[in-house]
Amino acid sequence: MVGTAERIAEVTVTPVAFRDYPLLNTVGVHEPYALRTIVELTTESGVTGIGESYGGTVHLERLRRAAEELVGLDVWSLNDLMARARRALGSDTAGGDGMSGMVTGSSTVDRVVSPFDVACLDIQGKLVGRPVSDLLGGAVRPAVPYSAYLFYKWAGHPGQGDDDWGAALDPEGLVEQARRMIDQYGFSSIKLKGGVFPPDEEIAAIRALRAAFPDLPLRLDPNAAWSEETSLRVARELDGTLQYLEDPTAGIAGMAAVARQTDTPLATNMCVVSFNDLAPAIAQGAVGIVLSDHHFWGGLRRCTQLAAICETFGLGLSMHSNSHLGISLAAMTHLAAATPGLTYACDTHWPWKRPDEDVIAPGVLRFTEGRVEVPTAPGLGVELDRVALARLHQQYLDCGVRDRDDTGYMRRFEPTFECTTPRW
Amino acid sequence: MVGTAERIAEVTVTPVAFRDYPLLNTVGVHEPYALRTIVELTTESGVTGIGESYGGTVHLERLRRAAEELVGLDVWSLNDLMARARRALGSDTAGGDGMSGMVTGSSTVDRVVSPFDVACLDIQGKLVGRPVSDLLGGAVRPAVPYSAYLFYKWAGHPGQGDDDWGAALDPEGLVEQARRMIDQYGFSSIKLKGGVFPPDEEIAAIRALRAAFPDLPLRLDPNAAWSEETSLRVARELDGTLQYLEDPTAGIAGMAAVARQTDTPLATNMCVVSFNDLAPAIAQGAVGIVLSDHHFWGGLRRCTQLAAICETFGLGLSMHSNSHLGISLAAMTHLAAATPGLTYACDTHWPWKRPDEDVIAPGVLRFTEGRVEVPTAPGLGVELDRVALARLHQQYLDCGVRDRDDTGYMRRFEPTFECTTPRW
Repeated sequence: MVGTAERIAEVTVTPVAFRDYPLLNTVGVHEPYALRTIVELTTESGVTGIGESYGGTVHLERLRRAAEELVGLDVWSLNDLMARARRALGSDTAGGDGMSGMVTGSSTVDRVVSPFDVACLDIQGKLVGRPVSDLLGGAVRPAVPYSAYLFYKWAGHPGQGDDDWGAALDPEGLVEQARRMIDQYGFSSIKLKGGVFPPDEEIAAIRALRAAFPDLPLRLDPNAAWSEETSLRVARELDGTLQYLEDPTAGIAGMAAVARQTDTPLATNMCVVSFNDLAPAIAQGAVGIVLSDHHFWGGLRRCTQLAAICETFGLGLSMHSNSHLGISLAAMTHLAAATPGLTYACDTHWPWKRPDEDVIAPGVLRFTEGRVEVPTAPGLGVELDRVALARLHQQYLDCGVRDRDDTGYMRRFEPTFECTTPRW
Repeated sequence: MVGTAERIAEVTVTPVAFRDYPLLNTVGVHEPYALRTIVELTTESGVTGIGESYGGTVHLERLRRAAEELVGLDVWSLNDLMARARRALGSDTAGGDGMSGMVTGSSTVDRVVSPFDVACLDIQGKLVGRPVSDLLGGAVRPAVPYSAYLFYKWAGHPGQGDDDWGAALDPEGLVEQARRMIDQYGFSSIKLKGGVFPPDEEIAAIRALRAAFPDLPLRLDPNAAWSEETSLRVARELDGTLQYLEDPTAGIAGMAAVARQTDTPLATNMCVVSFNDLAPAIAQGAVGIVLSDHHFWGGLRRCTQLAAICETFGLGLSMHSNSHLGISLAAMTHLAAATPGLTYACDTHWPWKRPDEDVIAPGVLRFTEGRVEVPTAPGLGVELDRVALARLHQQYLDCGVRDRDDTGYMRRFEPTFECTTPRW
């Protein structure tokens, strides 16, 4: 290996589906299956690396197109990876966000590059015998704190009986959900996905959580369901209660208008989702905290650059999550560990994934006191479980879901459901 | 090596001096010797890495203080390197810029970290068997273009007879200097260090260079010698002639005032010299191009972050140079090669260094058509020549120069020389 290129010989791209809960948000409700794509790179010398990304059809097709372009790539040339992805995509850059319309402005090249960037770093780490965090500058914390991610939810998917979490449709239900999640994982921050019920109900929920967990930082994320006026009213009513308010309203201009009139810190993973958004957001003072997400910010190295930008411009940095499997959790943990300025607990949907469903061999990623220890084995430190991968791929083939569509799924049960912005 | 920390066992910090020419600038004239510090890290397993930095007394003392703190550092933890340097420096952050008062606002921690960051990457590269450019994302160009760096100069240091370059004190002298430098190195861009003579003489020099080299991009750098009014007058007179005008006037506000009234792109390595300068400079639209310099921007990794910031905010990126030796040229070349957005030819003082004076074994770094091929051997790809290092260290001990002082040296010969800003 010394001194010679370590070239990609083979790329496999495998869509998978894993069971999901009926979690509510402002665009609808999670379907019974969440989709992901698992990529695996194998070098000419037989070293493998893995990555994880969205699973929608447009994105999946793009990953496959990029994959063809990657044979021959030197895993050390992440710049060449970006160039090859650009070439593979050409002018095909519209849509394919995979987030049910909630996050639409991210960069297609960055989304496509992301799982391959992670897989290249996994291989680099294995070649060097070092964890990925070391390739990002070294872990500054031995374990990464995550937050309890609360959702309003139905008792179960319609027609399938109650699930093991049961309903959470009011403050009491959320407090119970939080208590159970915190008991199980030890989280010491709480995030509530809002935008589901009229703002007063969600204000009441936050107040109930504050009463039940007086010492825990609280965040509320209505996914831009509110007008500027409503945003300001909620901010006023919850003045001093929230660690930050996430995307109360849509767009950089809207967020900036809210930011000018409240002391509540505003965070976003909706109006600043690509490098192109940073200049206007900073010029307008739209947000105080950016939630990074290596799945749409172009991978781990690009996220360290985002972190440098946030530090340079006095912005806080936190981390966003979608429904994900263990490869993503490992990647998020390495990244967060190696990012000194990432001082907030990261988001994760992990509690909403059934323990018996993943594509990695179990045992490495454990939550202790709400934290995941940074894997220390070479690369990501997690290994693909090919039997499990085949099972979740079969589940993908069988489940019939091909694109995340929270709104369409909601309309099956509430035909008059409208996805309006702002809703309140 | 696999999976275990690669810890620093020994750090050596060696000041060296090499002969310099009487190059003129707005604060005075280069002394007969330029100072640098060479750092060498040796790991517990005996792998060595090298770096190069300024050589002034305050900075040298800080490098030595930091060096003590680095024993035990894992070379993969550049985040820990930064933390240790911060700890070593404490509140000692004033002065020590080593640039004779021309660049004073850079970050002391970043200056101190820089040579150790380069040395750590040199070791990482050797451990992995890959060039440093690969650790920065991979070379996007096989060779890095540099520019011909013209100086007004005396015929020789007073009392020492004429040197081999002779005088350049008027347009004809500069054209001759350029012609010789281009013949020898093949440069295809030209930079003139100005701020030495009244603006009309320097305008005439640029016009003479334009006439002599009609196809070569030209840059003029008066080191903030001019008022805003003078800057605008020069920009107007040279409208369309300059690739960019570098630091015509002092400060972010001054540069912004000039920028608002000219189409000539403004570049800087004086008003944006640390991450702290970026937000105000961008908010005010002070500059169009930032000249990075890993010696004061905190090393190679931090410069890739600077590059990401420039790309994000639509700023061009070029590269600044001081008098330097081969370790720095190797580091600059790896960095520039791995920075896709660095599309200008880099500055280098290389032609002003005598070929028989360096601290690296000769042969690796060669100029062909104005470019330096990116070394492909592991690490920086250049090796310390201990005999040469000892010789240049002895020269440091013997030469008597301990701090760069262009102004003081000038006053020995022109006692009334005043360092005023703006001069014109």
